[in-house]
Amino acid sequence: MGVVVQNIARASADIIAGLAAVGVATVHEAQGRKGMLASYMRSIYAGAQLAGSAVTISAPPGDNWMLHVAIEQLGEGDLLVLAPTSPCDNGYFGDLLATSAMARGCRGLIIDAGVRDVRDLSRMGFAVWSKAVSAQGTVKESLGSVNVPIVCAGVLVEAGDVIVADDDGVVVVKRAEAEAVLAAANKRLGAEAGKRQRLAAGELGFDIYGMRDTLAAKGLKCLTASAAC
Amino acid sequence: MGVVVQNIARASADIIAGLAAVGVATVHEAQGRKGMLASYMRSIYAGAQLAGSAVTISAPPGDNWMLHVAIEQLGEGDLLVLAPTSPCDNGYFGDLLATSAMARGCRGLIIDAGVRDVRDLSRMGFAVWSKAVSAQGTVKESLGSVNVPIVCAGVLVEAGDVIVADDDGVVVVKRAEAEAVLAAANKRLGAEAGKRQRLAAGELGFDIYGMRDTLAAKGLKCLTASAAC
Amino acid sequence: MGVVVQNIARASADIIAGLAAVGVATVHEAQGRKGMLASYMRSIYAGAQLAGSAVTISAPPGDNWMLHVAIEQLGEGDLLVLAPTSPCDNGYFGDLLATSAMARGCRGLIIDAGVRDVRDLSRMGFAVWSKAVSAQGTVKESLGSVNVPIVCAGVLVEAGDVIVADDDGVVVVKRAEAEAVLAAANKRLGAEAGKRQRLAAGELGFDIYGMRDTLAAKGLKCLTASAAC
Amino acid sequence: MGVVVQNIARASADIIAGLAAVGVATVHEAQGRKGMLASYMRSIYAGAQLAGSAVTISAPPGDNWMLHVAIEQLGEGDLLVLAPTSPCDNGYFGDLLATSAMARGCRGLIIDAGVRDVRDLSRMGFAVWSKAVSAQGTVKESLGSVNVPIVCAGVLVEAGDVIVADDDGVVVVKRAEAEAVLAAANKRLGAEAGKRQRLAAGELGFDIYGMRDTLAAKGLKCLTASAAC
Amino acid sequence: MGVVVQNIARASADIIAGLAAVGVATVHEAQGRKGMLASYMRSIYAGAQLAGSAVTISAPPGDNWMLHVAIEQLGEGDLLVLAPTSPCDNGYFGDLLATSAMARGCRGLIIDAGVRDVRDLSRMGFAVWSKAVSAQGTVKESLGSVNVPIVCAGVLVEAGDVIVADDDGVVVVKRAEAEAVLAAANKRLGAEAGKRQRLAAGELGFDIYGMRDTLAAKGLKCLTASAAC
Amino acid sequence: MGVVVQNIARASADIIAGLAAVGVATVHEAQGRKGMLASYMRSIYAGAQLAGSAVTISAPPGDNWMLHVAIEQLGEGDLLVLAPTSPCDNGYFGDLLATSAMARGCRGLIIDAGVRDVRDLSRMGFAVWSKAVSAQGTVKESLGSVNVPIVCAGVLVEAGDVIVADDDGVVVVKRAEAEAVLAAANKRLGAEAGKRQRLAAGELGFDIYGMRDTLAAKGLKCLTASAAC
Repeated sequence: MGVVVQNIARASADIIAGLAAVGVATVHEAQGRKGMLASYMRSIYAGAQLAGSAVTISAPPGDNWMLHVAIEQLGEGDLLVLAPTSPCDNGYFGDLLATSAMARGCRGLIIDAGVRDVRDLSRMGFAVWSKAVSAQGTVKESLGSVNVPIVCAGVLVEAGDVIVADDDGVVVVKRAEAEAVLAAANKRLGAEAGKRQRLAAGELGFDIYGMRDTLAAKGLKCLTASAAC
Repeated sequence: MGVVVQNIARASADIIAGLAAVGVATVHEAQGRKGMLASYMRSIYAGAQLAGSAVTISAPPGDNWMLHVAIEQLGEGDLLVLAPTSPCDNGYFGDLLATSAMARGCRGLIIDAGVRDVRDLSRMGFAVWSKAVSAQGTVKESLGSVNVPIVCAGVLVEAGDVIVADDDGVVVVKRAEAEAVLAAANKRLGAEAGKRQRLAAGELGFDIYGMRDTLAAKGLKCLTASAAC
Repeated sequence: MGVVVQNIARASADIIAGLAAVGVATVHEAQGRKGMLASYMRSIYAGAQLAGSAVTISAPPGDNWMLHVAIEQLGEGDLLVLAPTSPCDNGYFGDLLATSAMARGCRGLIIDAGVRDVRDLSRMGFAVWSKAVSAQGTVKESLGSVNVPIVCAGVLVEAGDVIVADDDGVVVVKRAEAEAVLAAANKRLGAEAGKRQRLAAGELGFDIYGMRDTLAAKGLKCLTASAAC
Repeated sequence: MGVVVQNIARASADIIAGLAAVGVATVHEAQGRKGMLASYMRSIYAGAQLAGSAVTISAPPGDNWMLHVAIEQLGEGDLLVLAPTSPCDNGYFGDLLATSAMARGCRGLIIDAGVRDVRDLSRMGFAVWSKAVSAQGTVKESLGSVNVPIVCAGVLVEAGDVIVADDDGVVVVKRAEAEAVLAAANKRLGAEAGKRQRLAAGELGFDIYGMRDTLAAKGLKCLTASAAC
Repeated sequence: MGVVVQNIARASADIIAGLAAVGVATVHEAQGRKGMLASYMRSIYAGAQLAGSAVTISAPPGDNWMLHVAIEQLGEGDLLVLAPTSPCDNGYFGDLLATSAMARGCRGLIIDAGVRDVRDLSRMGFAVWSKAVSAQGTVKESLGSVNVPIVCAGVLVEAGDVIVADDDGVVVVKRAEAEAVLAAANKRLGAEAGKRQRLAAGELGFDIYGMRDTLAAKGLKCLTASAAC
Repeated sequence: MGVVVQNIARASADIIAGLAAVGVATVHEAQGRKGMLASYMRSIYAGAQLAGSAVTISAPPGDNWMLHVAIEQLGEGDLLVLAPTSPCDNGYFGDLLATSAMARGCRGLIIDAGVRDVRDLSRMGFAVWSKAVSAQGTVKESLGSVNVPIVCAGVLVEAGDVIVADDDGVVVVKRAEAEAVLAAANKRLGAEAGKRQRLAAGELGFDIYGMRDTLAAKGLKCLTASAAC
């Protein structure tokens, strides 16, 4: 503990923007159903959808000192990603830190702990996905680290990884895989458009995907409800 | 496992519409305070209020194959009701399945697991009450069953039962009891209207319900706070 | 059990209004980071912000009889604060009780259990912070007490304490400390205004708070990411 | 609510004894992986293993009156199975009730709530699987029902169903299926004995079950860790 | 924060010993079913049963500095009672602190957080009731307070209150009420002895408590299971 | 998904044995308070204490196929470490798999999910730390991976990392750091021995660690309880 890694590498802005536009569910499928943070990570307001490069923070429980350190490391389009070293629901982050982070180009916060001033943050358009909302404050007494690998809500995050977040939750894309994941996601979206049209017209996924025979082979049986039941 | 029951019986559309209009809290009281799903079942957007006939799905954890099978069983005004065979928060259902379900007349989904594409579902007006929101996808490998009795969020649901859902949660009305429950609920609403007026005028429930003597008989004592306290 | 304390003392309306305006996070800091209810206490609608004097209720699990008794004790600007004697998520409170409470001048409810009729309550502008939303009803069989000290969501609340609540949660201010806490909170707000301006201009909290040397003294090290990483 | 069903049907003592001997995990597999109560149901002491006919109880939260009623319905070899009508962790049951139940031939208790006097119960050899241990007592004010269908820890239980419980948890066997399940379980045990011997000798399940080709067909790849890693 | 109260008052050793002998469930009933800590407070080994005077500790999350301070305040027969200022499962306490506490006459620890070295503590016969077991350590950076009122696992504890703990959990007896509670508990035990004998002989609680008529008056109905069911 | 890494590197048997002897709490402190798995990971029986090299498994929810694959990769002294790709409490592992694993030299299992046959496993002396115990079985339908990096109970585990586990939980030591951590842990044990003796003699940690002045400097105040209180 007590390390700050500077000048991290990031994915290109175009790729990040592309991943943001695609959204979490499609990105998650496109990279082989991996990288989803735990489902308790929720947005503080509906409708936020964005992507950014992770500036990671490992912080002690109830101590937000490292957030102040991390803000100096922020670049345009970054997201702060904080994991406490043991479970904690304190409000590590509020409107003053958000003001400072936004002034450095930061787009939002992913925190496996609590936030506060959520009404102010919503008004400012500062996006947050958190485990909790709590005004219970923190101290500034113990060191942590910035831009080291962390496990946030069950997923490994390294500095510079691309984080994609929307109303479905948060997914991590490894920096080196971001370009390929974007390509796969866009291909997937194309295929979905055609299917959506057929499904809207009343065709069954059952038939579109040719599942009827596979299901029968697995042993699926159809019965008719008896008159009595 | 591996059974699909076809041609299930349903309550009449009038009764279902009546129960939807009454809302969950009144229906629950009217049928003797039973049938409420666990309070962790929440709507993905505020303001949804509906009722429908249950098409039930028993699915393995992390496997949504049976949803494709269930859609073929949907009739106008039905609701999908899914219970996994062990606890799971995966996103079993998203906008493509919703498109298909809506094309078959389905009004919404009750799922003791996760959903995804919640922004799209909200835009489409497809109502969902779920235990979780998660983009974590599922596979299509193992059989389950459709229209068999299931336990969803702690309550037994049989195919064709009437499900009523709003911002207060989800309640199950047995198909055979639906008519009587609607009558009792409407009677209850009538009685409440009069009470609401008296309460709004400042009368105490205490007096309206004649509780003062009963409470005294049970031993309730009144004290006055001391000056010092 | 079975006691009702009448004629409780309250803080002045001016102090209560002042605390409401300041909001939960600042009040919590101003009184030394104490008094926050557990972070599972959430508002039933976004944007509510208020303060009031606590009328406390200790109620058995699944029994809301004492709410009827408590309403008689309400004065203008009060808040109902209910703690069950063991964990319970039942819907103790709905639109009829809210109608009655509002007629007595009550501003809202803090309940370490469930509420129902949340759509109606939202329309009526009756604020509620609760642990759960559930239409699962309650009975009226057993006594509890009104205006005795209770522990609500982990915090001791005495009748007449000032409760401040907003989107960040709920904080308790002891009645005797309310004036001093308000003064400290307002002083804090003044100091924050200046800092917010400097942070918005891009200055670092790091520098404003003079943390650079303290952190170095604690042993914080800065590294530069290697080209390979 | 408020119903006691008398003279319920039960499975034969031989079948029940057979199922007890087989144990929960094998019974669960033998009936197609269904009927397991939620994994939070734990035995109050290690090593208990038994089976019995269910005498079911639906009880209000925090109210154990119906347990007294249920005891009159007990026969030799029965198990009490209690589900509260909403979640509750109160201690519904202690050593006096156990003394009474044992005098009627009862073997144990399955309760989706709390128990107390666990040291006494352990000494008496009265087996309990519960969600919680708590000395928090209950009242005797409201009716419930005995021998009606209940949902206990997520599973439907009807009076007379066979309950099998051991250190792995609790499983429900429908009365009508008990004989067939026992036969299937015993067959399964026979097959396992042979496999256990081969596995103990170092043979791989991989090979015994002929999985190697299936896995390759699904696309499993083997890599060798590089020297550097 | 940052206060140590010295020379607290305690109940007499006789009363404390009497309460220990009675046990938690009976004490809890004898004082009107109040004072139980949350049911997640579990003993680290089966069979511990004791009582002692509370030396209370309010500690920041993940910081055990105040335990060192509290040990100086311990007298013969005391129990340490720690509540973190926000939820935390860290291991605040291990074998070194236990060695020190035992040297001062302390009998055990009640902690709404984690402990570690549980095998050593068990061997030493140092009793602990905790929310968690975790080797995750703590720091010594921030002040807390000793012998101030705290809320531990949902219950108010003041320095010098009598804590009674056994396999059923932990209950708090107010110092001023300890003598009366002991008397009531012993009276209760006497009454139970007679009932136990009658129940063991097969008499029904139903009849002993004269419930048959009350239940009928409430509307309880008895049915006989139909041949078909 | 669908990868098996073979021939992983391991720490030396001496270092592993050394870490096992030291125990979890000391190892955790010696490596700078990192690497602890979540506190919900509990041993299925008291008293187990061991260390081993991790053979990691990433498995779909409710599917234990990869355990069969992983067993082929086991070497003398290894531990199986399984993380499901989304939360699951199914019983992935029982006595047959344990028989097979033991035949290959495996010492135990760390699983962020459920196990079953816990009585058999205890009798066999096969150690397990798990999130749950459940007889709810799994299927063998979908691929996962073996010896890839996983996140287990909140901590990154790579194949060949040393896992140390005892009654305090489970800690991960990176393979490359194992030797240094062992040295630091042994040094720490030496220092503790001296302190334990002084503490047992009644000396205060307060004084041994020279905290009195630091605490005063931080502002700690001592008060004497008033006669009235």
